[in-house]
Amino acid sequence: MDLKAYLLERKRIVDGALEKFAPRTDGPAGEVARAMNYSLFAGGKRLRPILCMAGSAAVGGEELAVLPVACALEMIHTYSLIHDDLPAMDNDDLRRGKPTNHKVYGEAVALLAGDGLLTEAFVLMSSAELSGIDPRSLMKVIGLIGRAAGYEGMVGGQLVDIRSEGTLVNSSVVEFVHTRKTGALISASVTAGAILGNGSEKQVEAITAYGEAVGLAFQIADDILDIEGDPEKTGKKTGGDAQKKKITYPSVFGLSESKAIQSKLVEKALGAMEQFDEKADPLRHLASYIIERQQ
Amino acid sequence: MDLKAYLLERKRIVDGALEKFAPRTDGPAGEVARAMNYSLFAGGKRLRPILCMAGSAAVGGEELAVLPVACALEMIHTYSLIHDDLPAMDNDDLRRGKPTNHKVYGEAVALLAGDGLLTEAFVLMSSAELSGIDPRSLMKVIGLIGRAAGYEGMVGGQLVDIRSEGTLVNSSVVEFVHTRKTGALISASVTAGAILGNGSEKQVEAITAYGEAVGLAFQIADDILDIEGDPEKTGKKTGGDAQKKKITYPSVFGLSESKAIQSKLVEKALGAMEQFDEKADPLRHLASYIIERQQ
Repeated sequence: MDLKAYLLERKRIVDGALEKFAPRTDGPAGEVARAMNYSLFAGGKRLRPILCMAGSAAVGGEELAVLPVACALEMIHTYSLIHDDLPAMDNDDLRRGKPTNHKVYGEAVALLAGDGLLTEAFVLMSSAELSGIDPRSLMKVIGLIGRAAGYEGMVGGQLVDIRSEGTLVNSSVVEFVHTRKTGALISASVTAGAILGNGSEKQVEAITAYGEAVGLAFQIADDILDIEGDPEKTGKKTGGDAQKKKITYPSVFGLSESKAIQSKLVEKALGAMEQFDEKADPLRHLASYIIERQQ
Repeated sequence: MDLKAYLLERKRIVDGALEKFAPRTDGPAGEVARAMNYSLFAGGKRLRPILCMAGSAAVGGEELAVLPVACALEMIHTYSLIHDDLPAMDNDDLRRGKPTNHKVYGEAVALLAGDGLLTEAFVLMSSAELSGIDPRSLMKVIGLIGRAAGYEGMVGGQLVDIRSEGTLVNSSVVEFVHTRKTGALISASVTAGAILGNGSEKQVEAITAYGEAVGLAFQIADDILDIEGDPEKTGKKTGGDAQKKKITYPSVFGLSESKAIQSKLVEKALGAMEQFDEKADPLRHLASYIIERQQ
């Protein structure tokens, strides 16, 4: 399968759907909608939406039917980037080579834009029944994605991440941070797709195992790109994590052991896919892409 | 009816449910859960949950069945207070006479605590089907509450509010801010109750009209309390709005005209209740309480 063509086509579909679901910028509060859209259309890979679509396809579901949930996942991801970049958090000026949200709109608006995107994600998911999805499955998915994003998932991971900066941590802390800060939402994306595609309990379980492995591998790949990546492709200088004394897999395990862990995770993800037919091929290829990507 | 006893009893029920639904503070990310709970249990009146319960009771619904949604409304309200108090926004040190969240936990944790509460609200609502509520009604309510909280509601109102500080505004701007920043979630609270209680379309419409009137009246009452309130009861010094050059009804219409508008809104709210029987008495009494309250 031609993964590059697959990714390009899915990105085009997701971008089109996001345009449709994006906040309207008319009215007195248009400034916050513009700030939301600035980050929503700042050049993301749309990995979470694509994983959601691929998760649905793998169990024989209709991948276009999950688009509202897929786009909601991208909104949640985008909100988390806006808030993480704020001066009170990571204090970043650039994201994907462009000024961060608060650099363009100011801190107050950036804070509200994040709040607005997080909220809009749930509004969008609550409307997804319109395209014929069983409301009970949708409730399950809203709970799943909410828990992945909340204090036991992404928010909790971000807390421990900032609290650990500059400290010596052991392997269980960096695993805690990575599985929650990044892994949880990636894993929820693919599981949500499988639930919405009416996968069996056994299928959803296997896809969740895939998602957990791939989600952690994705963040380790990010850590490695921060050391070995090409700034032209990643849109950021290398060495940023070390400079900020971020906890990363390479800082805890070393670079070569991190790569070994990453490969084992991809193997684990592929193993979880064994029971699936060729409809799971996109997930199989995505697992390798996630650690081989250059941005 | 004895409103004081009614409010006390409902507050006790809501506080009990919130204790049950509150984030767990064990585990490495316990600090963010403690920060969430600090503001969640900082002495709120629980007005939105009580309005949600009263909205359900008015149409003959079981008021205890709406508790997960009622508590989610309080979480959303609490998140908005935490973020509004941040230095990038209103920069407040005190809330209800206690140090604000970021004064206790720092800006980063307060930001995350707000994010966590907003997210947890939707997790909680997605679980409400367990207590026997029709998932289609629940989807409608999640969308309604999300829109009230989002960029077209509370978030948008907050944006225009901070952008208008210190400027001369006309009556339509202050009405825009108040109906969205405060009115939208109050209105959604009572409407959500009516939907979950299986009210007819006509009943839900009337209760929405009630909620819109009462929601705006509530914020005007807040503006007036900031001038005439007793700091012992409100937990804050008077004159704060004028000092911060906030846009308020008294600053646009004057104090006596603001009181007249407020009274008309309460009349309108009571008018919307005409088609209801005595099960709507709590809503009727709450309309008057909202402008007569001293905190």
